[in-house]
Amino acid sequence: MKDSSSRLTTWEYLRLIGVEELPPLTSPFDPGYDPVTVESHIEQSAHLMVALKISMACWQVANEAATRKKIAAARAHNVPVVTGGGPFEVAVAQGQLEAYLDLCAGLGVNRIECGEGFTELTLEARTIVQMANERGLEVQYEMGKKHEGPFTEESLEEAIARGHRWLDAGAVQLIVEARESARGVGTFGNDGSLNADYADRFANEFGLEIAMFEAPNKPSQFAFLEHFGPRVQLCNVRLEELLRVEIFRRGLHSDAFEIPKLRPAHPGIQVGR
Amino acid sequence: MKDSSSRLTTWEYLRLIGVEELPPLTSPFDPGYDPVTVESHIEQSAHLMVALKISMACWQVANEAATRKKIAAARAHNVPVVTGGGPFEVAVAQGQLEAYLDLCAGLGVNRIECGEGFTELTLEARTIVQMANERGLEVQYEMGKKHEGPFTEESLEEAIARGHRWLDAGAVQLIVEARESARGVGTFGNDGSLNADYADRFANEFGLEIAMFEAPNKPSQFAFLEHFGPRVQLCNVRLEELLRVEIFRRGLHSDAFEIPKLRPAHPGIQVGR
Amino acid sequence: MKDSSSRLTTWEYLRLIGVEELPPLTSPFDPGYDPVTVESHIEQSAHLMVALKISMACWQVANEAATRKKIAAARAHNVPVVTGGGPFEVAVAQGQLEAYLDLCAGLGVNRIECGEGFTELTLEARTIVQMANERGLEVQYEMGKKHEGPFTEESLEEAIARGHRWLDAGAVQLIVEARESARGVGTFGNDGSLNADYADRFANEFGLEIAMFEAPNKPSQFAFLEHFGPRVQLCNVRLEELLRVEIFRRGLHSDAFEIPKLRPAHPGIQVGR
Repeated sequence: MKDSSSRLTTWEYLRLIGVEELPPLTSPFDPGYDPVTVESHIEQSAHLMVALKISMACWQVANEAATRKKIAAARAHNVPVVTGGGPFEVAVAQGQLEAYLDLCAGLGVNRIECGEGFTELTLEARTIVQMANERGLEVQYEMGKKHEGPFTEESLEEAIARGHRWLDAGAVQLIVEARESARGVGTFGNDGSLNADYADRFANEFGLEIAMFEAPNKPSQFAFLEHFGPRVQLCNVRLEELLRVEIFRRGLHSDAFEIPKLRPAHPGIQVGR
Repeated sequence: MKDSSSRLTTWEYLRLIGVEELPPLTSPFDPGYDPVTVESHIEQSAHLMVALKISMACWQVANEAATRKKIAAARAHNVPVVTGGGPFEVAVAQGQLEAYLDLCAGLGVNRIECGEGFTELTLEARTIVQMANERGLEVQYEMGKKHEGPFTEESLEEAIARGHRWLDAGAVQLIVEARESARGVGTFGNDGSLNADYADRFANEFGLEIAMFEAPNKPSQFAFLEHFGPRVQLCNVRLEELLRVEIFRRGLHSDAFEIPKLRPAHPGIQVGR
Repeated sequence: MKDSSSRLTTWEYLRLIGVEELPPLTSPFDPGYDPVTVESHIEQSAHLMVALKISMACWQVANEAATRKKIAAARAHNVPVVTGGGPFEVAVAQGQLEAYLDLCAGLGVNRIECGEGFTELTLEARTIVQMANERGLEVQYEMGKKHEGPFTEESLEEAIARGHRWLDAGAVQLIVEARESARGVGTFGNDGSLNADYADRFANEFGLEIAMFEAPNKPSQFAFLEHFGPRVQLCNVRLEELLRVEIFRRGLHSDAFEIPKLRPAHPGIQVGR
């Protein structure tokens, strides 16, 4: 029997088959999982997480100790924690933005998401970003409406204009809305197909370092990676789907291996062992 | 940078935005998850759980130590544990009701669910409740048939009559069947839409303290909350969906914030800090 | 109140209601879950697992320590670990089969799956099996194509011929492909219905000890059990669905209790306690 004691690591193996080294590019989200599961996913995949979103208002009604555990685990692995846009909109609508920002900062959150998905903002972007920054919080802005269906030419232009306003005001990243369904919303038609032209508009306008796409399910995840290639940043990926996204991104999924822009281009060179 | 050291708790924040304090109103179910996940969900959300259902017969074929861990975790957080109706029906059909009740009591279960979802009972409700009570077990009764499609006027009347019989016999709660699909069963039509009139019949007949509705997926959960408002009791909610149900219940979900009977009515008063 | 101290175990109870004792017959798969969840499922259900598949290439991009934890937990409970067919195909296509086998052996994997689901093999079955065996690895072979739709008479014959070639070459088990969907692939039509004749062809050709069927979702799991009865081996069952499969297998699910070949035939005999 052959000796396997001079062990090959998974990472050495990935180089051998020609898989490119990539920075973290996905922001998974916790839709209300238990803290032990969240912590264990972070342990498994922190190197793939550009940020962890603790989603919707779930963390506000959970036992606060559970929320603090999740945040502590992310921070211990240098994964920034971002809150979702919903609680921000509710906070503003209820006249409690300051309290919301205090709460997020007090919990150890790194960044908040702002948006106008189901409400209209009356405050200026600059004012909000400044209030957040004063508490050590970064801001990302979500472009798109939750209840207005797919983008039209007009709403797309409007979303892009808002994106620019928020970038100018100090936001560090822009998110393209797709909700939980990626169907009949944002860049997704009522049949769930990606409108690649619309997606490109965001990419061309802001670049793939600033624009990040919500990809809440397998078809949307695969569509973005097939269209943009491995460098596109995806968010709102469920924690248990993160590894599947990352193997697709690297051309290691059976549906991705035939896609030229994803497939490992050629076998790597045998490394010395 | 502002000082966040006089920390706002999530609960204080919820009061600030006008969220009403609610008792536990949802009975999540464990459809066969691993014990560590179940325990961690209990730790995170015990204050939202009116009971934990360990579902179907899964706990009968699992390693018994795993089942005991789940039950112990629930009891440690004062969450009553209830077994599903399926194993009860099988026990009766196989002539082993006494053994079933002994088994449940021995495991530390607090309550059993009885029903006639896929079998016909020959025993009297009163006899069964008494046998359960003798072992320290409460009884809830599930109204509805698993394989007969949505309620008709006739089957609805029959279900209500059975509910009364079981209440009279000592059952402490009544459950309205919706299976795993909430489609083509009970109060749900073949397209998954809620028959609000039928749901109201149960609510009017028994009140929302006694009648509890199975809401196994997002559309059924949202439909019941939109129809009945925040006080409706829901069960058969998957553990990982519990927090989403609870933010919807409190008007904090983007789809709930516009619903007058769910939306936090007005911002709260700033509390002294 | 009755004394429950002479406790009935769940296993004693199952005998009482006439449930047959079965060996482990399902090979669940880990599609990228966190290691704590995987470990806890193994603790709960090792006695039901004929093997654990760590699926797709997820374990290659995860933190290697997380992958090692999963494998160690399985081995500690005497559950063999098998890798999926995708990484094998990629390894061959990239000219790194030896490195792949070294990697698997070094991680403590017991068995690899080989297949030609999305690539064509140029190496001989016998060569591959020998290379695996030299490293202490068993081989199972997956019959079917991922991207060619349901079997036709011709592709079925071809799949069976390949199965025989691999058995002759030393493979220990044969898997019938169904992907993640069990729809429009292998023995499943485009509407997701099982082609029982095609399934029987594999069963008759190889027997239910050698042929194992991928059953990635509830309809496919129930269809195979309804058709073949409790002794059919199923794989690619998600970990959290394993217990539901096992209660269906034993006739304890409400949909299975009416199926003669699954229902516990008659109550068991009261055992001495």
